[in-house]
Amino acid sequence: SFTQSVQTVTLIPGDGIGPEISTAVMKIFEAAKAPIQWEERSVTAIKGPGGRWMIPPEAKDSMDNNKIGLKGPLKTPIAAGHPSMNLLLRKTFDLYANVRPCVSIEGYKTPYNDVNLVTIRENTEGEYSGIEHVIVDGVVQSIKLITEDASKRIAEYAFEYARNNQRTSVTAVHKANIMRMSDGLFLRKCREVAENFKDIKFTEMYLDTVCLNMVQDPTHFDVLVMPNLYGDILSDLCAGLIGGLGVTPSGNIGANGVAIFESVHGTAPDIAGKDLANPTALLLSAVMMLRHMGLHGHAKKIESACFDTIRDKKVLTKDLGGNSKCSEFTGEICSRVQDMD
Amino acid sequence: SFTQSVQTVTLIPGDGIGPEISTAVMKIFEAAKAPIQWEERSVTAIKGPGGRWMIPPEAKDSMDNNKIGLKGPLKTPIAAGHPSMNLLLRKTFDLYANVRPCVSIEGYKTPYNDVNLVTIRENTEGEYSGIEHVIVDGVVQSIKLITEDASKRIAEYAFEYARNNQRTSVTAVHKANIMRMSDGLFLRKCREVAENFKDIKFTEMYLDTVCLNMVQDPTHFDVLVMPNLYGDILSDLCAGLIGGLGVTPSGNIGANGVAIFESVHGTAPDIAGKDLANPTALLLSAVMMLRHMGLHGHAKKIESACFDTIRDKKVLTKDLGGNSKCSEFTGEICSRVQDMD
Ligand SMILES: CC(C)[C@H](C(=O)O)[C@@H](O)C(=O)O
Ligand SMILES: CC(C)[C@H](C(=O)O)[C@@H](O)C(=O)O
Repeated sequence: SFTQSVQTVTLIPGDGIGPEISTAVMKIFEAAKAPIQWEERSVTAIKGPGGRWMIPPEAKDSMDNNKIGLKGPLKTPIAAGHPSMNLLLRKTFDLYANVRPCVSIEGYKTPYNDVNLVTIRENTEGEYSGIEHVIVDGVVQSIKLITEDASKRIAEYAFEYARNNQRTSVTAVHKANIMRMSDGLFLRKCREVAENFKDIKFTEMYLDTVCLNMVQDPTHFDVLVMPNLYGDILSDLCAGLIGGLGVTPSGNIGANGVAIFESVHGTAPDIAGKDLANPTALLLSAVMMLRHMGLHGHAKKIESACFDTIRDKKVLTKDLGGNSKCSEFTGEICSRVQDMD
Repeated sequence: SFTQSVQTVTLIPGDGIGPEISTAVMKIFEAAKAPIQWEERSVTAIKGPGGRWMIPPEAKDSMDNNKIGLKGPLKTPIAAGHPSMNLLLRKTFDLYANVRPCVSIEGYKTPYNDVNLVTIRENTEGEYSGIEHVIVDGVVQSIKLITEDASKRIAEYAFEYARNNQRTSVTAVHKANIMRMSDGLFLRKCREVAENFKDIKFTEMYLDTVCLNMVQDPTHFDVLVMPNLYGDILSDLCAGLIGGLGVTPSGNIGANGVAIFESVHGTAPDIAGKDLANPTALLLSAVMMLRHMGLHGHAKKIESACFDTIRDKKVLTKDLGGNSKCSEFTGEICSRVQDMD
């Protein structure tokens, strides 16, 4: 055995069931002796100078120092003009790649087997530009903004990801038959980048065709790269194929190692505080985080313990088809992790 | 028996397998004694005055007279600046509602049972506005245009459709959390129209959530109404649930009874002319057309003969899992139609 330096990670427990599932992850990390120290921060928006909504400086500073965050679900604020904090986090830290692996979970039955794909979503522009106008009364336009730089950056990320994760193909998803200039630019950049990755097969497909083929046979897909909104849609669709947002991890990746990993399900206020929540999505996001940090051994151990628990079917939360509490499910994973030592 | 006046319909056989499947539909209509007379027209684009691509005047005039058309698949032209003829037809005749019923077909196995929903897509604006600009080198914008009038019109169509087709709920599909002004306007119009249809349940859902729920359990959905691009995506996704574009009908509906019904699959050049094509999607689109024209008896007869043939599994084209030719499948439907007399 060797000594590892402990790294600090910003933990944003979030709202609703967020604190419970965060506690679960911390317990499992402790059981696995993951060399992680948590710095807990809230990202409840505050009004900054000039009335602009912003991330609290304690959270911002923590992320700036640690570079890596783990985040639970956040309440969607209803106040007019209040931004989604999820979006504000992506923007503030320029987390340009949203990465969601969708892999079938053994023992958790859905209509599909052998799903094993990754959606890579451009996370900073496109339909999420936030630029909208009233032209005349009753006529509104929203602007989809596509840039060469962001398209190139996400295409390169997708191909690098494929290469580094033993994947063999990248599919660019687009509607360049309709949005000839914007999706056309995105597609052109993908084609150009593909030239530099001759070891990875490149294909391009219309978004509608991808959706159709996906529900008919998802096993043909590998890495998919696409503009922002298409990624929002496809990543949820794909999560549905393997069991939903309760079991799907997600990572938001920026430059220079900066990244926030998050569960993308809701805050489930109806079961919050009742020890009924399923921590799997946050745990698997934390496993992605460990891999991002190079802690592959710990990642593998925790991931196996989680999947073994699900495959075993003895100790499962309600949404997974069982009767156990969040703490019992967590305890089961902890003891499996410890048994591996 | 009573005498019915024969109505003339514009038939656009289209490219690839288009002529074969059109012939199949004509034979089945003849066997069913449907009081329809066909006026065949080509819509291969021609260059009009000023170099603008347009629909050939013979096809335009025929549609203007007959108001109702049936259309096979069209080749997508590759020439730069050449518009999609599908889109040009929708635009030329202001076919503002794209209607695609997705109903599970007994005997044709997919991972889903009991799908029974209809997607209603705004067919004239939104992301399909065609307005795009280069802002500066490497920065492109596409404009999504949403108007009060078109939103109101499609919402009204959806609620009327629900009422006239014994359906109980309408769901507006949107991303108004992101596109607050454009999708916000669309959603507001849906809410307003819903006020006038108290007999129909109204709900609103995010597009990503719809996709996720759709692949997990599509049986909860009934009528869905949405802006153009979302309809493009969702209608293909839903077609996938029941077996794909080879079995899914589609109608493009305008004002004053004007409508074009079409199969939305491709031209399948690889099997064109080989008597191997499956005419089901075009036939079921033609059945939608009969209902649109008030010919419910003929519609029911042809539909039943088609579904009985599929359920029976004895005479099926290859894509449906059989070994029969297009002409054999067509013949089987014809004799079933005749047996019903
Ligand atoms: C919360 C919401 C703004 C967000 C999005 O639309 O991107 C969510 O759906 C997601 O996929 O992370
Ligand atoms: C052919 C293409 C332009 C069209 C669209 O994008 O609308 C097609 O996908 C459809 O759904 O009818």
